[in-house]
Amino acid sequence: MIILGIDPGYAIVGYGVIHYEKNKFSAIGFGAITTPPTMEWTSRLETIYDDLNSIISKYSPDVMAIEKLFYNNNAKTVVDVCQARGVTLLAAKKNNLPIFEYTPLQVKQALVGYGRAEKKQVQEMTKSLLNLSVTPKPDDTADALAIAICHAHASGSIMNLIK
Amino acid sequence: MIILGIDPGYAIVGYGVIHYEKNKFSAIGFGAITTPPTMEWTSRLETIYDDLNSIISKYSPDVMAIEKLFYNNNAKTVVDVCQARGVTLLAAKKNNLPIFEYTPLQVKQALVGYGRAEKKQVQEMTKSLLNLSVTPKPDDTADALAIAICHAHASGSIMNLIK
Repeated sequence: MIILGIDPGYAIVGYGVIHYEKNKFSAIGFGAITTPPTMEWTSRLETIYDDLNSIISKYSPDVMAIEKLFYNNNAKTVVDVCQARGVTLLAAKKNNLPIFEYTPLQVKQALVGYGRAEKKQVQEMTKSLLNLSVTPKPDDTADALAIAICHAHASGSIMNLIK
Repeated sequence: MIILGIDPGYAIVGYGVIHYEKNKFSAIGFGAITTPPTMEWTSRLETIYDDLNSIISKYSPDVMAIEKLFYNNNAKTVVDVCQARGVTLLAAKKNNLPIFEYTPLQVKQALVGYGRAEKKQVQEMTKSLLNLSVTPKPDDTADALAIAICHAHASGSIMNLIK
């Protein structure tokens, strides 16, 4: 199974593509879509949508796993993050990918075993499970890979499927 | 000038298309895109995106005018409203429409003359300016027409252009 993990955002959308089979993980590709603040807002949305289409077309993932958002995440940016997340979901839908969402708590539990784990512990585990020599940067990329791994752990459960 | 007014949402997206020339208004078309709660979330986003593409293609508007959202509008639904608004903006962008946004205060001021006007006053003025025999239903459709009229009043000003 090929999983596209997404850390949603508008300035930086982290993505991580992993292959998972028989409890073995490997990273196929990862990085970040970035849009500068100087770019007009609708062009930023379009860039995210178009780049995601390219990434999906390049790696042919079976599913998208994305961080669940809460309205109180960061009140000041939540409107823009959610608008960008909308076009992110649309890109998956237009490519017929089922989408699963996970809370940061679920990601930490899946990777480190408890929900109060530090970000650094999650990153270390991500690096180790994927046999990477360094933690991918920016953090959004590492987070996206962690979300993909979390989905691999949870796969088989439709509990987190966005309906 | 043909203006597509949008009252953003996910269960109901109100739209109103007006023609404006030499201080005269006429309604070309109006209605609402509706998505039922039983439909899966990403299909709702896709329906909004696809239906907007059809509406834009049918009426060939010059611009989109849309209500500005604030994170404290309604905390419980803001995440979903904003995700839907993201795909709404993407539809405009993909059709090369410039997008202008207006606060409810600006809409009320443009139509009734003061920002604390009642919804009913705004609806009466909308009906009157567009020579309609009844106020369009649902409220989201009437609101979308009001936003379109607000843009006609403000046109020439790039103050409200989404950058």
